[in-house]
Amino acid sequence: MHSQPQPQPKAVVLLSGGLDSTTALAIARAEGFAPHALTVHYGQRHARELDSAARVARAFGVAQHVTSTIDLRQFGGSALTAEIDVPRGRSPDAIAAGIPITYVPARNTIFLSLALGYAESLGALDIFIGVNAIDYSGYPDCRPEFIESFEQTANLATRAGVEGPRPIRIHAPLIHMTKAQIIRRGIELGVDYALTTSCYDPAPDATACGECDACLLRLKGFAEAGLPDPIRYQRPPLL
Amino acid sequence: MHSQPQPQPKAVVLLSGGLDSTTALAIARAEGFAPHALTVHYGQRHARELDSAARVARAFGVAQHVTSTIDLRQFGGSALTAEIDVPRGRSPDAIAAGIPITYVPARNTIFLSLALGYAESLGALDIFIGVNAIDYSGYPDCRPEFIESFEQTANLATRAGVEGPRPIRIHAPLIHMTKAQIIRRGIELGVDYALTTSCYDPAPDATACGECDACLLRLKGFAEAGLPDPIRYQRPPLL
Repeated sequence: MHSQPQPQPKAVVLLSGGLDSTTALAIARAEGFAPHALTVHYGQRHARELDSAARVARAFGVAQHVTSTIDLRQFGGSALTAEIDVPRGRSPDAIAAGIPITYVPARNTIFLSLALGYAESLGALDIFIGVNAIDYSGYPDCRPEFIESFEQTANLATRAGVEGPRPIRIHAPLIHMTKAQIIRRGIELGVDYALTTSCYDPAPDATACGECDACLLRLKGFAEAGLPDPIRYQRPPLL
Repeated sequence: MHSQPQPQPKAVVLLSGGLDSTTALAIARAEGFAPHALTVHYGQRHARELDSAARVARAFGVAQHVTSTIDLRQFGGSALTAEIDVPRGRSPDAIAAGIPITYVPARNTIFLSLALGYAESLGALDIFIGVNAIDYSGYPDCRPEFIESFEQTANLATRAGVEGPRPIRIHAPLIHMTKAQIIRRGIELGVDYALTTSCYDPAPDATACGECDACLLRLKGFAEAGLPDPIRYQRPPLL
């Protein structure tokens, strides 16, 4: 007698199309989940992320890819959503000091809430988010204490949390990794980082600026990992 | 010498256009806040709530009324968003037992997250939500322990929580009130309940069905308060 193969448990993966969320997707798959990708189009300037997210989702053959649209520009207050210049050419220390102007109010709380609604509708008890607290650009909603608190809230908020077979889990597998460690782990798992986009302010032809915080953290990560970054930049990287 | 009048602190009030959220708005105003109303259009069948929300916001002269659109039907799984018949003519005990089919996955978590983003953009530290745990229709995200947990998460998630002058507060002033108590309090504060809508499935002319859980809880509340419900119903109320 053969035992029935167990179906893979479903997981929702928040997928921006950037380096971190793509690596989180690869980790979810490697851990045996059937990933369902959720991309949130929130009025970000860098809407080219959406193209990257679609390319990554296709490359991974995810079970489903939902793009949710919510216009956070209605609330104002961020470089990603309003007409403020993003900082350029900052040192790693300057990037790490304080909460930057690119902070979007409550962004990860909103993203995780939507992922929670999607997960519960799917019958999934696992949500993956690619935040990291090391090279994390100073965002409060990338810290472990935020993720733990949201997980507790999720279990109080939902039918799944109240009646489910086990608690809902928010996975933040990159949270204690440096950018270099994230890249090395992704390469081990076969991630093609040429599909990803990190730049806050890419050119019309989608090449990265090479000078915003996101580009600088990415370039530093590849440099420290001793690997070439396969995406194109508008000018030779500063690093 | 005259002291400068203090500006009223801003608060975000989640406003569906129903009886509860309208009363929460009246309470926020009575407590000295300058209310900013946030209505979420999430693909609910009863989109007539949106008209009620606009009428209520106008009647209260709120400082700003933002309507955010997010299509939760993309995730599936609820009578409010998918093609499922809403229950009719249920007894109060039946309504109170278990989580009903009208439950929308993670709805209040999503609503509060959006309110948090709006509040932080405004510089507000106070959010009002009209949930109640007595006549609450069995939703897990109407319980006090959910509200407390979300408040904790909000303070970890945001710049305002990390750097603000005092913690962010989630106000749920109706949470321990019966529907009759809510209505009496609203009447004391001058609320015109003719502006509000509660029905899950109103007729094309916007009259309430009188038989869904929301109508039955509302009618029971007015009956217990000894007051007439000023809205129109499709047929004589069962109560």
